[in-house]
Amino acid sequence: MSTSGTAAIQNLYPDDLAHCFGCGRNNPHGHHLKSYVEGEDVVARFTPESQYVSLPGFVYGGLLASLVDCHATATAAAADLAASGDKNDRPVPRYVTAALRVEYLKPTALGAELEIRGRVKEQSERKKVVDLTVSVAGTVTVRAEAVAVRIPRNMERPGG
Amino acid sequence: MSTSGTAAIQNLYPDDLAHCFGCGRNNPHGHHLKSYVEGEDVVARFTPESQYVSLPGFVYGGLLASLVDCHATATAAAADLAASGDKNDRPVPRYVTAALRVEYLKPTALGAELEIRGRVKEQSERKKVVDLTVSVAGTVTVRAEAVAVRIPRNMERPGG
Repeated sequence: MSTSGTAAIQNLYPDDLAHCFGCGRNNPHGHHLKSYVEGEDVVARFTPESQYVSLPGFVYGGLLASLVDCHATATAAAADLAASGDKNDRPVPRYVTAALRVEYLKPTALGAELEIRGRVKEQSERKKVVDLTVSVAGTVTVRAEAVAVRIPRNMERPGG
Repeated sequence: MSTSGTAAIQNLYPDDLAHCFGCGRNNPHGHHLKSYVEGEDVVARFTPESQYVSLPGFVYGGLLASLVDCHATATAAAADLAASGDKNDRPVPRYVTAALRVEYLKPTALGAELEIRGRVKEQSERKKVVDLTVSVAGTVTVRAEAVAVRIPRNMERPGG
């Protein structure tokens, strides 16, 4: 996968499709996850606030699922961006998640920075299967797989 | 499954294990999901606030994953409660999610009440497999399966 400079994938989403609670720059309340192409992978780093707790000392599993979900759609979009030769002659495609599988391998300590890493393992023009991990301090605590699909064109430009 | 009166399952969790962002009564910032035994199922109802958006008009998939995750562990605990004859002679068991699979069958409209429904389909003393759905206005929009496992006894009573 080629790189697309230093821009976060989510910063390339069209303005009217950038409200997602997990990763939309236009959602004032959300997590604002930012995913970057790094070599063959797409990587995001995120430090959960203390309220995102499950059992004392550990990150809430729902947040972990949320982060891999948003990161998967960004990873899918990044693959299309790379395939297009990074030409900015069309909007970055917006994917949604059709299916998500998350394995919580071990508890994820709360308080440290998480590294979320994604890679497309199967792809067609409108569908990508993405493998993901979440690590803390170099240890993988979560593995996930997401099936991301392009949103229908008539949803890409509401009213357009 | 027998009923356990009108108490939400999460209200029966021990105080020191009730901080979960999704369903803990002791988390002032969280969703406070409440799950109730209704006949053979365990049911929760939840209306997401407008900030939990994905694409405009639809519920954020990360929230949907979070809700089924917490509801699955409550459904697992409810099964143990029913098996014990609802005798309140021991703490309600606390489960965590080992694996979660979510299928987003169709977009979930934002603004209406969601119904989250769970049922244990396989169980042993320390592990439950839970089938789940999320519906809005009577239409199932999400199907999920969770593997919930009892937390290790040495995590149940920190320091105890």
